Amino acid sequence: MSKAPVVAIMGATGAVGVELISILEERNFPVAKLRLLASARSVGKKMKFRGEEITVELLTHDCFAGVDLVLASAGGSISKEFAPSAVKAGAVVVDNTSYFRMHDEVPLVVPEVNPGDIAKHKGIIANPNCSTIIMNLPVYPLHQAFKVKRAVVSTYQAASGAGATAMEELKQETAAILEGKSFTPTVITQPYAFNIFPHNAKMLDNGYNEEEVKMVKETKKIFHDESFKCTATCVRVPVMRAHSESINLEFEKPFTLEEAYAILRKAPGVTVWEDRANNRWPTPLMVAGQDNVFVGRLRRDETIANGLELWVVGDQIRKGAALNAVQIAEMLKF
Amino acid sequence: MSKAPVVAIMGATGAVGVELISILEERNFPVAKLRLLASARSVGKKMKFRGEEITVELLTHDCFAGVDLVLASAGGSISKEFAPSAVKAGAVVVDNTSYFRMHDEVPLVVPEVNPGDIAKHKGIIANPNCSTIIMNLPVYPLHQAFKVKRAVVSTYQAASGAGATAMEELKQETAAILEGKSFTPTVITQPYAFNIFPHNAKMLDNGYNEEEVKMVKETKKIFHDESFKCTATCVRVPVMRAHSESINLEFEKPFTLEEAYAILRKAPGVTVWEDRANNRWPTPLMVAGQDNVFVGRLRRDETIANGLELWVVGDQIRKGAALNAVQIAEMLKF
Repeated sequence: MSKAPVVAIMGATGAVGVELISILEERNFPVAKLRLLASARSVGKKMKFRGEEITVELLTHDCFAGVDLVLASAGGSISKEFAPSAVKAGAVVVDNTSYFRMHDEVPLVVPEVNPGDIAKHKGIIANPNCSTIIMNLPVYPLHQAFKVKRAVVSTYQAASGAGATAMEELKQETAAILEGKSFTPTVITQPYAFNIFPHNAKMLDNGYNEEEVKMVKETKKIFHDESFKCTATCVRVPVMRAHSESINLEFEKPFTLEEAYAILRKAPGVTVWEDRANNRWPTPLMVAGQDNVFVGRLRRDETIANGLELWVVGDQIRKGAALNAVQIAEMLKF
Repeated sequence: MSKAPVVAIMGATGAVGVELISILEERNFPVAKLRLLASARSVGKKMKFRGEEITVELLTHDCFAGVDLVLASAGGSISKEFAPSAVKAGAVVVDNTSYFRMHDEVPLVVPEVNPGDIAKHKGIIANPNCSTIIMNLPVYPLHQAFKVKRAVVSTYQAASGAGATAMEELKQETAAILEGKSFTPTVITQPYAFNIFPHNAKMLDNGYNEEEVKMVKETKKIFHDESFKCTATCVRVPVMRAHSESINLEFEKPFTLEEAYAILRKAPGVTVWEDRANNRWPTPLMVAGQDNVFVGRLRRDETIANGLELWVVGDQIRKGAALNAVQIAEMLKF
């Protein structure tokens, strides 16, 4: 970067917005000025950045004058409406919502996988779905080495994917259930305390939900490989902020477990973590707050010729959203 | 049955023991006399059966005189030690532990799948692992129709699999965490509240844990099909008493979704439950206390020729353990 950009966060008060502010601070991202944009409900709220109080302003079509970088995380419909205004005002938008992800002219980027796509942007760069990013980090280097013929994935997704209000509601609902009280949820409208359920994303005609289809379609775009075959089952579990994934890979080429471990040990953004003697593996609580995606339990699936099972856990708010967006921004020139 | 048997429950005070008593009562199982056997710690405890108080007696090698049927659920080492004494005294043992399951001379039975094996017993009949039973109910009729070439399974397992003490500990741990207090677990010795972790069963040299291997080996024995290929990832989730399974099946033969639904709708022990319009599917809380295994979300996996994804939920304590054992007992002659 040649000069520090003026940065605006759209959706500053949400789970990802709060994390964006703290990651900009942690990573010492050059910021000439930080502006926090949100809906009328949050206007006037004060949030801290580098020891300074910043007042949340109203998000409008005219608010982007002088802004160089927008980090957007206020929902797909908000990005659809306001991102073009930001681009018109001269800003680059790193959009954390799903709205632009599959648009042909919008790069969809996991910096460890396809950093070269960033330069192709026309004002908007999309941040992939959290489950996609977390799967892509360990799978991409294995795909490069052994070519994935087919992936079968089951997820164990945290409340944070549904936002800060869902996280708070899960706590309140759990406390109520433990006290034998009834609870009427408003964010996740089915029982969530001590329960799991197939992901509440919109159902499609083929029986998959949108979250599952995102994992498949986005991965093809990020890997630049339309032949990548993947089927997913996405499930919410009563966990706060890290997603886990049980991933079964069938490779074209033969491999050894030693080779697979070696590839993952040097893969960017990946931490191989195992305590085999004590039967301990990455868990959501262990990985919460971590930048890297944690991987373990590599084992050969003997039901096919070149089969590998692995267990993957990543912080949904960080690498699954805010961190990935800031990493993209770090690769931009201002 | 020609005469009502004298029934003894080994491990009467555990989660499965308590359920056994209530299922015998519910199903009006003919019982001439019920005896409750347990370790010294529980002796003298009183439990209700058909309105009558029964006092827990000490389990000893000599306690089986006059007993016709033993329902054993006190752990593998207890069954190993005491089941032969029960058989010697003339009783038939339906053993809910893992100890005898893979012994050649011991039938391993899911009544809806291989009821014919019951007659081959030599005193002991084994009840399969809970995750195995729950998978077998919907998979067996599909396997008969289309022949499973390969199954990839990921589980979402409840606390009840680790016993009543694990269920109670999960509640206490969750309450402590919500109050910001520390908690030292004694049953599940890693963080479980708002967390998930790969199943804590013993790790084997091939990287799978015993729970995963049980699902594969037991299914082959129950299906009488050593060619049945299955790979499993078993995970514990903070849920009380029902297990969920994400099952991906590859069939030898072509199928239609309509055929698969029709087969499951008439499959014994299976309930197809979906509320597609509201994006609702079977969940652990919905299925807790139910006899049947609930199935939904059938969808074609387009990454292979004959691929089917399905979502399965079953009560671990009932069909996964106590109910299956009582169903076996109902098929015995006394």
